[in-house]
Amino acid sequence: MKLTFLGTGSGVPAKHRNVSSLALHIDDKEGSVWLFDCGEATQHQILHTSLKPRKISKIFITHLHGDHIFGLPGLLSSRSFQGGETPLTVYGPVGIKEYIETSLRVSMTHVKYPLIIKEFEEEGLLLEEADFTIKGKKLVHGISSFGFRIVQKDLPGALLMDKVKQSNIPSGPHLQELKEGKSVTLSDGRIVEGIDYIGPPKKGKVITILGDTRYTPVSVELAEEADVLIHEATFAAKDEMLAREYFHSTTVQAAQVAKEARANQLLLSHISARYQQEDVLSLMEEAKEIFSNTVVVNDFDVIPIK
Amino acid sequence: MKLTFLGTGSGVPAKHRNVSSLALHIDDKEGSVWLFDCGEATQHQILHTSLKPRKISKIFITHLHGDHIFGLPGLLSSRSFQGGETPLTVYGPVGIKEYIETSLRVSMTHVKYPLIIKEFEEEGLLLEEADFTIKGKKLVHGISSFGFRIVQKDLPGALLMDKVKQSNIPSGPHLQELKEGKSVTLSDGRIVEGIDYIGPPKKGKVITILGDTRYTPVSVELAEEADVLIHEATFAAKDEMLAREYFHSTTVQAAQVAKEARANQLLLSHISARYQQEDVLSLMEEAKEIFSNTVVVNDFDVIPIK
Ligand SMILES: [Zn+2]
Ligand SMILES: [Zn+2]
Repeated sequence: MKLTFLGTGSGVPAKHRNVSSLALHIDDKEGSVWLFDCGEATQHQILHTSLKPRKISKIFITHLHGDHIFGLPGLLSSRSFQGGETPLTVYGPVGIKEYIETSLRVSMTHVKYPLIIKEFEEEGLLLEEADFTIKGKKLVHGISSFGFRIVQKDLPGALLMDKVKQSNIPSGPHLQELKEGKSVTLSDGRIVEGIDYIGPPKKGKVITILGDTRYTPVSVELAEEADVLIHEATFAAKDEMLAREYFHSTTVQAAQVAKEARANQLLLSHISARYQQEDVLSLMEEAKEIFSNTVVVNDFDVIPIK
Repeated sequence: MKLTFLGTGSGVPAKHRNVSSLALHIDDKEGSVWLFDCGEATQHQILHTSLKPRKISKIFITHLHGDHIFGLPGLLSSRSFQGGETPLTVYGPVGIKEYIETSLRVSMTHVKYPLIIKEFEEEGLLLEEADFTIKGKKLVHGISSFGFRIVQKDLPGALLMDKVKQSNIPSGPHLQELKEGKSVTLSDGRIVEGIDYIGPPKKGKVITILGDTRYTPVSVELAEEADVLIHEATFAAKDEMLAREYFHSTTVQAAQVAKEARANQLLLSHISARYQQEDVLSLMEEAKEIFSNTVVVNDFDVIPIK
C-alpha cells in the first residue's frame, strides 16, 4: 500500500500547498483508491498524478470545513464525465449529504455511477470489509472532526514448501487448496490438512489518519502502534497558543502523539501558509527531537507503507 | 478597462485550461474587479495573477452548471480569510443563493464582509450604477443561461482649451467648474456656461459576455456593436452536430454572431479539452474566415478593451 498526498496545506490554497486531500492506494485487485478529505482543486491535483478518478471507490471526510470538502462536487462530477461507472461511497459527518446533494442538484449534475453517501454522527466501527476495518473517533476541533484507524486484516501465511517436500506431497493444483487451509486427499490416499502447511499470518498494516485537532489522548488511542500516523501540524512549536486558539496542533504535539502511541512513522501535513518552504526543515527538526521517524510531507509526495 | 481570463476550458478542468472564470477590471478609483463565472479553482488561478480577491466587488454567474460555480464557496471564504471587508454582491440565476448559503452553512464558514446574493429569473436591466448598466437576456443552453451586455456610460467631453483662450477666460480653479458643465462668473463680471466649452462626450465601452449557448439571435442582440464580445466556442465547425446536441456553439457560429452584431472584437473561450493546444490555431482560423478580428483566448490572457 502507499499514500499520495494531494494537498498538504491549511485553510486556504497556496501556490505550493493545496488544501487537504490524501489518497490511500489499498492494493486490491481493482487498484482501488480511498480518498481522505477533498479540498477545492483536488481533481486538479489528480491531473498531475497517475491516479484515475474512476479508481476512487471510497471518500472519507474528517470534518466539514471548506478546505476539506469544497472539491467534492467537482470531483464527483468529473469522475462521471470521465467514464466512472463503478459505485462510490462518501463517508462523512452529518451535513455532508446535504452539501453534496444540494451542489449536484443546483448544478443539474447527474452522475452516471451509484453514489452512496453515509453520514456518521457516532464514534465506532464505520466500516467492516473483507480486508479492512475502519474505526472513527471524535477529535477536538470546535466542529465534529474525526480521526480514522484503518486496520488491514492479517494476510494468510505462506505455504511452507520445505514441509510440503518433507511430507512427499507432490506438486499440483491441490497445493493451492492446502495454501487456502483446506483438507486435501492425495492420490496415495493420505488426507493432509492445509493448516499444518501454512506459516504464521502476516500482520496487516495499521494506518491512522486524523482530521484537524488539538492535542488529545483520543489521537494516541487511534494511533496505537500504527505503521503510519498522518497528523496535522498547522503550527510550529513556538505558536502553541495560536494552535490552541484555532483548535489545531503544533509539530511537537503531533510528535508527542506518535511517541505515546508507539507508532512506527509520523507524517506531518496541513502546514500553515505562514511558514515558508525554507521554514519546513525546522518544523521537521523540532518534531524529530520528540519522535525521530517524522517527515513533513509536500504535495505530490508518495509514501509507501512499510 | 481590461479582461483577465482565469479559465478558458469547458466542462472539466484540463492541465492547461481551467473551467470558466473571467475578470473584468473596471478602472474605477477603487480598482474594482467584476468576476464572470467562478469554476472550481478560480481562486487557485488568481494566485498566479496580480489580482486581489478583496478587489472583487461583484460576481456575475451566467448559469448554474458546475464548471461555472463550483469555485464560489472557496473564493468567498478565502476573500474573507485574506482580509476582504468591503461588500461583495453575487448575481446569478435562481438557485445560486441556495447553493452558496448551503455550502457556507454546512462548512461553518462565516465571511467577515457583507455578502449580498441577488437572484434573477427575468430578463432585463440587472444593474444600473453611476458608470454602468448591465442588461441580461436568456440564451439557449437547456438550463437558464444568461448573456450580459455591460454598457459603460458615456464619459464627459474634454474642456475645449482653444475656445477658452479665444474667449480670454483666465486660468484658475473655475476651469474645473466649467469642465463640469457649471455656470461661472468671471472676475470681469462675465457669466460663462460650461456647456459652451466642453467637447462631445466620449463613448463608453460595450462589453458582451455570454454564458454557454447554442447559436441564437439573442446573442446578436446582446452583442450589437459591442467593443468586445466574449463567446463560447466549445466545438470546432466540423462538430456542429455535437454542439447542437450539447447546447453549445462552434467557432464559426460564434463568429457569425460577432459579424451579424457588427462587434469590434471576438474573444473565443470555453474550448473543449478534446482539442489539443496545436488544434487551437485552426479553431481560430476557421472563425477568422467569418469574422477577422477573432482571438481564441488562453488561461491568464490579459486583453485590454480598446
Ligand atoms: Zn483544515
Ligand atoms: Zn460550461
